[in-house]
Amino acid sequence: MSLTASECAAYLRGQDGFLIVSHRRPDGDTLGSGAALCSALRRAGKTAYCINNREITDNYRPYVEPFLAPEGFEPRCVVTVDVASESLFPEAAPGRVQLALDHHPSNTRFAERICLAAERSSCGELVLEVIKALCGDVSAQEAALLYIAVSTDTGCFQYSNTNAATLRAAAELIELGADNSELNIRFFRTQSRARMALEGMMLSGMRFYRNGKISVVTVTLDMIARAGATENDCEDLAGLAGKAEGSVVSLTIRETKPGESKLSLRSKPGVNVSEMCAAFGGGGHAMAAGCTIAAEPETALELMLRVMDEKWPAD
Amino acid sequence: MSLTASECAAYLRGQDGFLIVSHRRPDGDTLGSGAALCSALRRAGKTAYCINNREITDNYRPYVEPFLAPEGFEPRCVVTVDVASESLFPEAAPGRVQLALDHHPSNTRFAERICLAAERSSCGELVLEVIKALCGDVSAQEAALLYIAVSTDTGCFQYSNTNAATLRAAAELIELGADNSELNIRFFRTQSRARMALEGMMLSGMRFYRNGKISVVTVTLDMIARAGATENDCEDLAGLAGKAEGSVVSLTIRETKPGESKLSLRSKPGVNVSEMCAAFGGGGHAMAAGCTIAAEPETALELMLRVMDEKWPAD
Repeated sequence: MSLTASECAAYLRGQDGFLIVSHRRPDGDTLGSGAALCSALRRAGKTAYCINNREITDNYRPYVEPFLAPEGFEPRCVVTVDVASESLFPEAAPGRVQLALDHHPSNTRFAERICLAAERSSCGELVLEVIKALCGDVSAQEAALLYIAVSTDTGCFQYSNTNAATLRAAAELIELGADNSELNIRFFRTQSRARMALEGMMLSGMRFYRNGKISVVTVTLDMIARAGATENDCEDLAGLAGKAEGSVVSLTIRETKPGESKLSLRSKPGVNVSEMCAAFGGGGHAMAAGCTIAAEPETALELMLRVMDEKWPAD
Repeated sequence: MSLTASECAAYLRGQDGFLIVSHRRPDGDTLGSGAALCSALRRAGKTAYCINNREITDNYRPYVEPFLAPEGFEPRCVVTVDVASESLFPEAAPGRVQLALDHHPSNTRFAERICLAAERSSCGELVLEVIKALCGDVSAQEAALLYIAVSTDTGCFQYSNTNAATLRAAAELIELGADNSELNIRFFRTQSRARMALEGMMLSGMRFYRNGKISVVTVTLDMIARAGATENDCEDLAGLAGKAEGSVVSLTIRETKPGESKLSLRSKPGVNVSEMCAAFGGGGHAMAAGCTIAAEPETALELMLRVMDEKWPAD
């Protein structure tokens, strides 16, 4: 059953005992939108918690901590937020879902009810509408949580999914009390010293093929150790190589353990990197795909360059 | 005389033979706003050109080229855009200015008429209002030029000058035809290979003092040569050091010639770096200032660290 934002609000008003479920490897959209919805439900007099997702990273934890469900909480109404399929459920998520709030067109319709805003760049924009319909207003804390959702899902309005409605929603959230200046510093203008050291090594070791059309960055276990980087410092490493002027395909090779390399490919329109990754049992989207190769980074690079020559011959 | 945006439009309608003047070391706001205004004046049937500012960098050139004044053009009405004072006039600018469009509260009132939107984060937002009042509409090309203005002056909506009105103006510009996805890739998600190599060296050589509260990056002539970097590749180098988590004051030292160093300081609220720079004859704002020291980078660093200890004693 498909619901509009106001039908969602009406449904939520009739329920209680909510558990809000974020997705695996949770990002700012699933966590921020979920916590904002939880806060609004509490303001509406409901008992509501967010699932204690074990993969919440340090940067988001302070914002979601007040909403996390205690051990043993028995929900009566389960709502997923920004979760496209059951395969993305976090550990210990309930199997039966009463309502899914999502913006992924690929949502697999696992829930009894769905409110899908496929034209939205983030789930946060949809949750903003639901909260307004539910409570008539939005608290400053909810505005901040939704600003985190909208801004992180669009790379602070840089990514191509950003549209006029995204910017208008963000404007509204600032007016509702989100401190965009502070949140931007925290999420977009601060890097750990380890991450900066690692990026320094990545940039210094960057290599180019085919006159710069292919840019390659390697991240070895040794580099991670020398930078003192943890898993928190290694998010979104794949974006760096593609920034090089003239790069059409970028390849980021991360040594995950000795003899195993994880490859992330990004491309500009017209070149399908998903096909290249499929040659090694991987996949993804046409312009963003990945695969794992049981080889050292240098060998993995050679193997991938050979596949690139086949699938994407030089002009 | 102070004018509103619509009074500006009325004044412009009564004039002809326009020269639009950008500021020294022109950025996206002065160039994008100026070119958009020029285009709108032409649509309104006027003769209008932008001054052929010698310092236009390669990234902006393709956008402003169609508007540059030919040699010997004799203006009858001079309009400055985003120029705060006469000291910022580019080479060969006329001395007498009929109208200044600006958003700097510090504007020195050098023009006969001023339209000042001090609450706006960019001059582009003001020019958008002027164009709507002048023509009744905005062309897609003008929208793109104004998007360049608004986005570059706010670091693609990341800087603390970004407010709700900024985001609403950007939303409007997208609806008017600005291709934000393409423009963001070009201005925020693309770097020259030389710049990336230089940043790699800067990050690798980053140093910290006082438990990380002071972050220091040095850019030597040798590093610039090894990276193959030109002046175009050296814009906004001062932003990098301040991204380090825990940094309160960041210092970027650039060797400008043997025995001369240019220091750029940035700080978080509560620490005045302008005072530190004043000790060497420099100045600026409380949280962004600079100075030049006649010494090698390492000596300049020692001298500045000593001044920091005086002006900002450790707790």
